[in-house]
Amino acid sequence: MGGSAPLPSEFRFIRRHFSALAGEGALGLTDDAALVRPPKGRELVIAVDTMVESVHFLPDDPPDTVGRKLLRCNLSDLAAMDATPLGYLLSVTRPHARGEDWFAAFAAGLRDDQAHYGLALLGGDTTATPGPLVLSLTILGHVRPGGALRRGGARDGDDIWVTGTIGDGALGLRVLRGELADASGVLARRYRLPEPRLGLGLGGIASAAMDVSDGLVQDLGHLARESGLGAWLDAASVPLSDAARRAGPGWLPTCLTGGDDYELLLAVPPDHEAALRRAAARGGVPVTRIGRFDRALKGVEVRDGAGGTLALDRPGWSHL
Amino acid sequence: MGGSAPLPSEFRFIRRHFSALAGEGALGLTDDAALVRPPKGRELVIAVDTMVESVHFLPDDPPDTVGRKLLRCNLSDLAAMDATPLGYLLSVTRPHARGEDWFAAFAAGLRDDQAHYGLALLGGDTTATPGPLVLSLTILGHVRPGGALRRGGARDGDDIWVTGTIGDGALGLRVLRGELADASGVLARRYRLPEPRLGLGLGGIASAAMDVSDGLVQDLGHLARESGLGAWLDAASVPLSDAARRAGPGWLPTCLTGGDDYELLLAVPPDHEAALRRAAARGGVPVTRIGRFDRALKGVEVRDGAGGTLALDRPGWSHL
Repeated sequence: MGGSAPLPSEFRFIRRHFSALAGEGALGLTDDAALVRPPKGRELVIAVDTMVESVHFLPDDPPDTVGRKLLRCNLSDLAAMDATPLGYLLSVTRPHARGEDWFAAFAAGLRDDQAHYGLALLGGDTTATPGPLVLSLTILGHVRPGGALRRGGARDGDDIWVTGTIGDGALGLRVLRGELADASGVLARRYRLPEPRLGLGLGGIASAAMDVSDGLVQDLGHLARESGLGAWLDAASVPLSDAARRAGPGWLPTCLTGGDDYELLLAVPPDHEAALRRAAARGGVPVTRIGRFDRALKGVEVRDGAGGTLALDRPGWSHL
Repeated sequence: MGGSAPLPSEFRFIRRHFSALAGEGALGLTDDAALVRPPKGRELVIAVDTMVESVHFLPDDPPDTVGRKLLRCNLSDLAAMDATPLGYLLSVTRPHARGEDWFAAFAAGLRDDQAHYGLALLGGDTTATPGPLVLSLTILGHVRPGGALRRGGARDGDDIWVTGTIGDGALGLRVLRGELADASGVLARRYRLPEPRLGLGLGGIASAAMDVSDGLVQDLGHLARESGLGAWLDAASVPLSDAARRAGPGWLPTCLTGGDDYELLLAVPPDHEAALRRAAARGGVPVTRIGRFDRALKGVEVRDGAGGTLALDRPGWSHL
């Protein structure tokens, strides 16, 4: 060849949009892999989440919220384990029609959230696709060895708690599809920008935890099954936002099964209630008791508050 | 709902195909994240690689080789850093038409390679797509702190070495496309199943390394640029397999720029030659000297062995 080798377009793309996001250990995003030194005496936590255009986000969602949503969904997995964020890797599978402006805004959103949540990009991969945009994010966190909250730790008689409010994300999707009105904008914002409940310090307080991503009833079913228990849920106790209440009671099943909440679902022994309330107050996050684990039940019973049970078409959302 | 909650189809899919691959720390693939305890006193290495159907593999490639190729490409990144495999996460973005049999064979291939290379599945994500199959694999390895081989460490006068043979993968793709004949089957096999050069113990011997994935000339350009040097390459010295030689000299540019080699490209000080040869012999991997880093050159000069330089249409492969 001779002469200075030009950077291939893939490298220029990475340099343009992602170099500013790279943290220590990322080696400038120019090496074969990244280096990670977990903080001394801590255990690593790792998870991956993938979002597909038109499946997990809408083609006309603002690009800065797409990156932030992807990062926040992954951060929510760390929150569910009581872990602290460390860094992430990003795989971008890019259709040709998706332009530079879109990725500039996408990366700007990530930069804002990185600063807010205290982590940085470690590495990634960029490739072309004839199909829709696919974004895959691998997140790394750390936790006290043996201290990670798990799904299988709930005990018979533990109360069921949730953080924040349930259903806003699912209703927000309906708002963006034009199926529901919400002048406040709260619901659409909650769909696009979930708030991972990091840093609550629930280790030693909760006996089990997971984040609510695929629908409250279905996800509670997972927590119960992994713990070898059944559970009941009082539908009237499930915390709803003002915007969700305004939508009306006909939307309650959507709230209970719709997914996209990214709130924490917790199993808490009754005598840990005060400690839970203190931790939640410190973190500025509301918590609400919505039911109980019960070994006498099979699966999840959704009670209607009038002595009956609520029939739901489906418990939640499957990605296949 | 009442009654035992059925597993959503996504969970059944994971259980059917991937539970058998799960290692320690994967938490049965049922939790929000996986736990990783790096071996005491070791630094973690992490990388992600994504493959898209029709871009990185052919729709009719045997499914067991698709999973193995994805894993091996990632293992090759670890090899380039002189790291030891630890585990991996897998994200499957699945078109509806891609059936169960395909994934059963895909997972069987992964299972074989896991056992061979000594690592296990830690976690993942599964989701549907209206587009082509996208497979994203995040690999974890470990290395002596400070001992990772990097791209930027080459010094003026270091010799350039490669492991194995160059060009077989690129020619194999042409064979599978019907553009080239190879009765031996060697070339197609090398395209489908690269051999990551793990465990050679090149730390302290090589001053820089990377794996050749996007074309020898282009990748050498990266190594040179990251090291602030130029380099020359003697085309006649580049090691070719018997099958590649049989293809004829007209295919040499394809070998030099085609990619999919997954051999190691090394910068080695001349007085480390004996140590390199010993390490390679222990690992049963041939190594060949093909050029030298030279601060007086800009970029990569490909010499033709007759006092001239070789003109190449492009140095390698860009993924965008």
